[in-house]
Amino acid sequence: MIKQKDSCQIKEELHEECGVFGAYNTKGGDIASWIYYGLFSLQHRGQESCGIAVSENRDIRYYKDMGLVNEVFTPENLDKLHGDIAIGHVRYSTAGSSVRANAQPLVTKYVKGQLAIAHNGNLVNAVDLREELEKNGAIFQTTIDSEVIAYLVARERVHCPSVEEAVFRAMPYIQGAYSLLVMSPRKLIAARDPYGFKPLCIGKRDDTWVVASETCALDTVGAEFIRDVEPGEIIVINEEGLASDRRYCNLAEKSGRCIFEYIYFARPDSVIDGVSVFNSRIMAGKILAQTHPVEADLVVGVPESGNDAAMGYALESGIPYGRAFVKNNYVGRTFIKPKQSMREQSVKIKLNVLKDAVKGKRIIMIDDSIVRGTTSGNIVQMLKNAGATEVHVRISSPPFKYPCYFGTDIPNRDQLIANHYTVEEIGEMMGADSLGYLDLDRMGEMVEGLEYCQACFNGDYPLAPPTRDIRGDMEF
Amino acid sequence: MIKQKDSCQIKEELHEECGVFGAYNTKGGDIASWIYYGLFSLQHRGQESCGIAVSENRDIRYYKDMGLVNEVFTPENLDKLHGDIAIGHVRYSTAGSSVRANAQPLVTKYVKGQLAIAHNGNLVNAVDLREELEKNGAIFQTTIDSEVIAYLVARERVHCPSVEEAVFRAMPYIQGAYSLLVMSPRKLIAARDPYGFKPLCIGKRDDTWVVASETCALDTVGAEFIRDVEPGEIIVINEEGLASDRRYCNLAEKSGRCIFEYIYFARPDSVIDGVSVFNSRIMAGKILAQTHPVEADLVVGVPESGNDAAMGYALESGIPYGRAFVKNNYVGRTFIKPKQSMREQSVKIKLNVLKDAVKGKRIIMIDDSIVRGTTSGNIVQMLKNAGATEVHVRISSPPFKYPCYFGTDIPNRDQLIANHYTVEEIGEMMGADSLGYLDLDRMGEMVEGLEYCQACFNGDYPLAPPTRDIRGDMEF
Amino acid sequence: MIKQKDSCQIKEELHEECGVFGAYNTKGGDIASWIYYGLFSLQHRGQESCGIAVSENRDIRYYKDMGLVNEVFTPENLDKLHGDIAIGHVRYSTAGSSVRANAQPLVTKYVKGQLAIAHNGNLVNAVDLREELEKNGAIFQTTIDSEVIAYLVARERVHCPSVEEAVFRAMPYIQGAYSLLVMSPRKLIAARDPYGFKPLCIGKRDDTWVVASETCALDTVGAEFIRDVEPGEIIVINEEGLASDRRYCNLAEKSGRCIFEYIYFARPDSVIDGVSVFNSRIMAGKILAQTHPVEADLVVGVPESGNDAAMGYALESGIPYGRAFVKNNYVGRTFIKPKQSMREQSVKIKLNVLKDAVKGKRIIMIDDSIVRGTTSGNIVQMLKNAGATEVHVRISSPPFKYPCYFGTDIPNRDQLIANHYTVEEIGEMMGADSLGYLDLDRMGEMVEGLEYCQACFNGDYPLAPPTRDIRGDMEF
Amino acid sequence: MIKQKDSCQIKEELHEECGVFGAYNTKGGDIASWIYYGLFSLQHRGQESCGIAVSENRDIRYYKDMGLVNEVFTPENLDKLHGDIAIGHVRYSTAGSSVRANAQPLVTKYVKGQLAIAHNGNLVNAVDLREELEKNGAIFQTTIDSEVIAYLVARERVHCPSVEEAVFRAMPYIQGAYSLLVMSPRKLIAARDPYGFKPLCIGKRDDTWVVASETCALDTVGAEFIRDVEPGEIIVINEEGLASDRRYCNLAEKSGRCIFEYIYFARPDSVIDGVSVFNSRIMAGKILAQTHPVEADLVVGVPESGNDAAMGYALESGIPYGRAFVKNNYVGRTFIKPKQSMREQSVKIKLNVLKDAVKGKRIIMIDDSIVRGTTSGNIVQMLKNAGATEVHVRISSPPFKYPCYFGTDIPNRDQLIANHYTVEEIGEMMGADSLGYLDLDRMGEMVEGLEYCQACFNGDYPLAPPTRDIRGDMEF
Repeated sequence: MIKQKDSCQIKEELHEECGVFGAYNTKGGDIASWIYYGLFSLQHRGQESCGIAVSENRDIRYYKDMGLVNEVFTPENLDKLHGDIAIGHVRYSTAGSSVRANAQPLVTKYVKGQLAIAHNGNLVNAVDLREELEKNGAIFQTTIDSEVIAYLVARERVHCPSVEEAVFRAMPYIQGAYSLLVMSPRKLIAARDPYGFKPLCIGKRDDTWVVASETCALDTVGAEFIRDVEPGEIIVINEEGLASDRRYCNLAEKSGRCIFEYIYFARPDSVIDGVSVFNSRIMAGKILAQTHPVEADLVVGVPESGNDAAMGYALESGIPYGRAFVKNNYVGRTFIKPKQSMREQSVKIKLNVLKDAVKGKRIIMIDDSIVRGTTSGNIVQMLKNAGATEVHVRISSPPFKYPCYFGTDIPNRDQLIANHYTVEEIGEMMGADSLGYLDLDRMGEMVEGLEYCQACFNGDYPLAPPTRDIRGDMEF
Repeated sequence: MIKQKDSCQIKEELHEECGVFGAYNTKGGDIASWIYYGLFSLQHRGQESCGIAVSENRDIRYYKDMGLVNEVFTPENLDKLHGDIAIGHVRYSTAGSSVRANAQPLVTKYVKGQLAIAHNGNLVNAVDLREELEKNGAIFQTTIDSEVIAYLVARERVHCPSVEEAVFRAMPYIQGAYSLLVMSPRKLIAARDPYGFKPLCIGKRDDTWVVASETCALDTVGAEFIRDVEPGEIIVINEEGLASDRRYCNLAEKSGRCIFEYIYFARPDSVIDGVSVFNSRIMAGKILAQTHPVEADLVVGVPESGNDAAMGYALESGIPYGRAFVKNNYVGRTFIKPKQSMREQSVKIKLNVLKDAVKGKRIIMIDDSIVRGTTSGNIVQMLKNAGATEVHVRISSPPFKYPCYFGTDIPNRDQLIANHYTVEEIGEMMGADSLGYLDLDRMGEMVEGLEYCQACFNGDYPLAPPTRDIRGDMEF
Repeated sequence: MIKQKDSCQIKEELHEECGVFGAYNTKGGDIASWIYYGLFSLQHRGQESCGIAVSENRDIRYYKDMGLVNEVFTPENLDKLHGDIAIGHVRYSTAGSSVRANAQPLVTKYVKGQLAIAHNGNLVNAVDLREELEKNGAIFQTTIDSEVIAYLVARERVHCPSVEEAVFRAMPYIQGAYSLLVMSPRKLIAARDPYGFKPLCIGKRDDTWVVASETCALDTVGAEFIRDVEPGEIIVINEEGLASDRRYCNLAEKSGRCIFEYIYFARPDSVIDGVSVFNSRIMAGKILAQTHPVEADLVVGVPESGNDAAMGYALESGIPYGRAFVKNNYVGRTFIKPKQSMREQSVKIKLNVLKDAVKGKRIIMIDDSIVRGTTSGNIVQMLKNAGATEVHVRISSPPFKYPCYFGTDIPNRDQLIANHYTVEEIGEMMGADSLGYLDLDRMGEMVEGLEYCQACFNGDYPLAPPTRDIRGDMEF
Repeated sequence: MIKQKDSCQIKEELHEECGVFGAYNTKGGDIASWIYYGLFSLQHRGQESCGIAVSENRDIRYYKDMGLVNEVFTPENLDKLHGDIAIGHVRYSTAGSSVRANAQPLVTKYVKGQLAIAHNGNLVNAVDLREELEKNGAIFQTTIDSEVIAYLVARERVHCPSVEEAVFRAMPYIQGAYSLLVMSPRKLIAARDPYGFKPLCIGKRDDTWVVASETCALDTVGAEFIRDVEPGEIIVINEEGLASDRRYCNLAEKSGRCIFEYIYFARPDSVIDGVSVFNSRIMAGKILAQTHPVEADLVVGVPESGNDAAMGYALESGIPYGRAFVKNNYVGRTFIKPKQSMREQSVKIKLNVLKDAVKGKRIIMIDDSIVRGTTSGNIVQMLKNAGATEVHVRISSPPFKYPCYFGTDIPNRDQLIANHYTVEEIGEMMGADSLGYLDLDRMGEMVEGLEYCQACFNGDYPLAPPTRDIRGDMEF
């Protein structure tokens, strides 16, 4: 099970690294507050920092800080943001770079005026690009890829007729995952890397175009889903409407579409590249029921990410779906962890078992993934202590074996339990009566035959991973 | 559906007014931090203010403030609280008295030293008691009942050999609902009113006695459930252990046990007076399926409080249990409500429909209650907009018709929709294809035959309601 | 030298314990914000907590918290306070009771409605009164004297026709120092103890009566000084104007008027009981010049409290007045004290010497008092290090030998350096070339012959000091 | 009178724009906390934002934010800053760019690693430099000159053997005022522009070199003054000690030394380029007494900046120096300004008159400058209302006629009263009985014959002022 950073850390955590949301009202209407609600519905994609940049009277202004959308934006500062074009960003990052300087959107001045950039994904050649730029005198104030992209766009813009053309010319330099929003005072540009690693979709409500990481954000602002941005496509929205530049489409040999968006990251009410996230989770559960059947009395999910696959398992197997856990929703970022005498209670504070529901029962427990495996055993034990006679664990993804370099913080190989033990051994270590993972060769059924990246499971990266890390942040 | 104040206001809200948690380590061990975790698991009972009082070296100290347990207590101030006896409180209140002065525990000095009081429930004769005390020169600095109780105990203690005896002598004056913790520097006393309105239970872990509003809090600190405090019972815990005073037990003619704890307030993993809250909700769903059957494709709950009854309905009816909604868990107290152009999005920001799950389906939607009915219709409409062909609403409680005076903020009769319209009319107003409430005469099955208070449904109050309100708060 | 707590701790500190300010607009005009500015000008009398209570539409409301007036009151909360009657309070306290519960005004409900109390001074029989009240069932939630006074007034009010009569009847029970404001929904009452320990004055501007601790607060709100409240007098202001009850006037055998208000506490622009504080300080300097003359090149004050007496010394002696120090005004309460390698810099960070002004000069350095004497030597040394050839220290008050029990935190006898060493010894310990204190028998010239309390210098208390301390605070 | 922004706004305000402080312990000792105290003593040079960057183990880290040193740095974050090299900055700015992004030091990565820059002064060709850099692809994230300087240094460093050489090569591009600190992981570099606009001095304590805007900061950390950095000089401090590069010294035709540092900006305990600031103010007062004598009873300063010149006037004229005002030191940045009925009190809240000191007297009132002249009249009127029979105003600087482009926010010509009225007219408008300014041709006596910039008085700029403004900030 993989959980949001701020409120649900029950055991291991994986994180999406960002969400973006932009809007353009072509009649000049003020849509700044839309970004607030859009980011709010993308909060699961990043809980560390957030920001909004607006273009008001062809002047770009912004506000960003560490914290949840709810915390960063107050009625006072939201009231100061107005504009007919606006973009926003929510961000997660690994500990080292959780600093204010890295909050997005990145707003800069460059040769043609102002530019705001919001980016979801990870470049694999960021270090090389930085070095090359530094060799030409560049200075870097952050460790985010958006700053690299801003430089590349600025560099191209010097010799190039429009900002969208500068984005087009910068793209060949940028290798890796990016779902990108670029706002100039007059234009909203969206670009998705040719591999399509990260989702990006287009919606519309009346005179307002919306671009967002997930369709759930379109629903939130009442926008109708129009279509996904295609891998390699550049979208330009200006007063006259939306135009598309497909010169880079169909260039990637392999798809980079992240299967883990379906397994865990995305909100279940989103539809990515035509496939419902919810349906894909139900399907994962069904496949598990077919491939790893077992006799039992109850199918339960580890809340909340395991619930949908559990429902799928129940539907397919005919074993009743039920509930075994109560999660405490009040565990926030400021939660004080127990020490000494209370340490063994750590999981229980966040997750309690419904004893009456599991006592004397054979349980099938569905979770979305196992990373380090350190606390999964605790949960199995909690079920047994509550009287479950058997606990069969089913995981709605294949075993993690390789790190991700494209915007997900799957840790390095040493820390992944599946690199050290067999499935049987892991099951035993957890105290489970059986353990079954989703079969790699059936995973494609989850996404109705779409192509996707499964490198975290089989190491087959669509793009060569980076060989060096970026140097650490300086702010603290 | 009735929701927690801070994070889940989807439509109408009802609130529990408090939760209490106390602990005593009879070997002198420090259990102050237990209260933090105990309160944390009772946070659903009150999100407005909270506090902890400890007895360290026979000296009582406290800290309390407005906010969630997570917000009020920091590592710094929690580290300053130590003691082998401690009590804590979480509080909800109606707007007027949401002031810092009213946070609990109330800590006072009186004739025999120090006293800390934490109280769940509402007295019905508080105004009379205040007037009587004022006529003898009392001054009041808050509008909470704990202050009245402190006065009564202090008054008795002048002529009485022990604090527990003072509590005993004060009880006849106190009419209404109270699950009460009283801490002196050397003793922890718990008392439950003879009607047993509010839950209160006893647990133990090694040398530590725990008293809490709900058993889920015992689980959180790893304490074993011993038994419920009986209606009318006074429990005294001191260095020598636990003693019970049952002189007031069995005195009430009617039970005041709040059925709404089972329907909505309590956490599903709690067991109150021997009945599992989870089971009672499953049972409510089953009864609904028996009494209000309908042909349909899917049974769904309005999250999260409707989910358990929905599972019960599904089990009984054989119609598959499913999921129709995704709730945004990031809606906190500081959430900025949309204005103007976005207003119609208000519910959608908090609750989105899984279109793929409901499209073309006949849905049975289970919610726990209808108060004003103002937004239930929106949710029905959301399902229909998403393509549901039929929406049948089932409510896992009878229609609210009467206000509660014992610790729940059910509003006055005028605001309760069930006093103005028939069930058919309400269903029509909601746009539901049918509407069914839990039958009043079958409600008892939820609690396995326990006696209970159902005054909010039929006006049959176990104790005469108050005739006057307390005057308003002065702090703001 | 004795300094304000928050920003000027250069060496020893003494503190006034409170300031009060009240206003009543007899035509119903809103004067709530006057209290803000009045308290602001009395901030030197207490920097720990503050509060304002207003009577709006005959309903009393309040806001108070820890912090400076500037910090506690924001435009938002000040905008919520309206009324034609209002009182405010600024408070200092010794460390133990620096808790939020002790902030004033104390607002209570009692037999006849609402009551707000703000108090400057210390009762000497508070412990006895508390015990007596507790024996009748009272509970105490704070350790401030205002709570005792509120009880006494409430007790009398039960059998008494008006609140002002209740104040009158309560006064015989209250022994000690009090300059008191009592606000009922319709009246503003001011009372000063028969000894006149603490100042209290009356002003008027158009239809608004003002009562304040010092006249500087009248200036701030543009009110004209009318007269001081007499020792023992009770003032009642209602819609019809101001009335006076002098039944307790002239009852005290001795005056309790605090000479230290003139020496250090009060603002120099205040006039107390007819004597200008500024003039009294100039006079102290002149007397020092007469009684402790010395040949020198420059007279300087330790900023800021020594400056006025230094000017007086210069005027009388003919030696030029000059400046030797620059104080850093940015030392606030959150200033981080140096550790280890920087410790010897501690005084220098707050106070630097003007080397060019003192080099090669014989300096007379005036300070207002010496308490523990621990850091005065540092300042003398700083002057010598900067090149002063001689440093003659003159103190504008006699040596402190006895603690104060009436509202000043002069520490106990053991800690007062003058109880352990002769004047010569103290001078030597400081490294001064000579040391001279104000002569006790000439101190009266400072206040133009007014009677006053000089107990801190000679132990001759106008009222017997208390024999017991109040028990400690419970909040932290 | 010109006042600090945060606490003393009595009338018009002028602001210094920055202060810098750096230290290097050549034995590897931790001196991070020195920066805190150094900045603290330079707080008068900028109260808007501040920051500290350290080099610890050859890695640069920083913390900066809006607020006073006291507010930004807590024990927690100060404890995280360690290093043997460190620089800090305090900043003031005009309203538009008071944003967090503009706080300094600016810390960047560039071709050779890390770089931190802190800068006092204003470039006159910043807009041109930005445009040129942008034409080569640069992006700008702030509007501060430090970012321009960082780019120039980074650009040079690409082709140049050391960071100090890069600073050297960048300097010809940089026109305007700069007292600059540059920290690389191993070096501390200080540079002062060839005009010497802003002060910069060197101190030493044991193994630690210190570079600071003013000598008062050396005193604060116990460092001995070594010498001023010469105009045009580059200082390099590394493990081996301090080296100097004077290749740009003596290049400027005119001195840019800011006379206003002596008149108002600098702390009186500082010595700049060999002249004591205190002495220069005393001298200004003496010159005023010689050039604008008048019969009177008392010489007073408008606190606090007028006091020293007032002492000089008194010394020269033989008229006694006295005190006429009491300033409220508690007026902080969050002070709520009076509205409506209290508006006329606005000045009085901050400044009250000592009526007893001025009544019946002829007063000479010394202030340091008049900018817009809007409130000076109020102060004269306050003296007259308090009974002064005559008020003669003397200003310790010549009339302001021209704006400053080198780091002081003297407003544009239209807003300067001296451009609209004669001295006589201004005196009349203020209600003064006479008005005298310091004579421009005698001003040099203040600084003992040093060369200086007097462009704000006579428009004779040592360097051509900029023709264009930088575009506004985007953050808010």
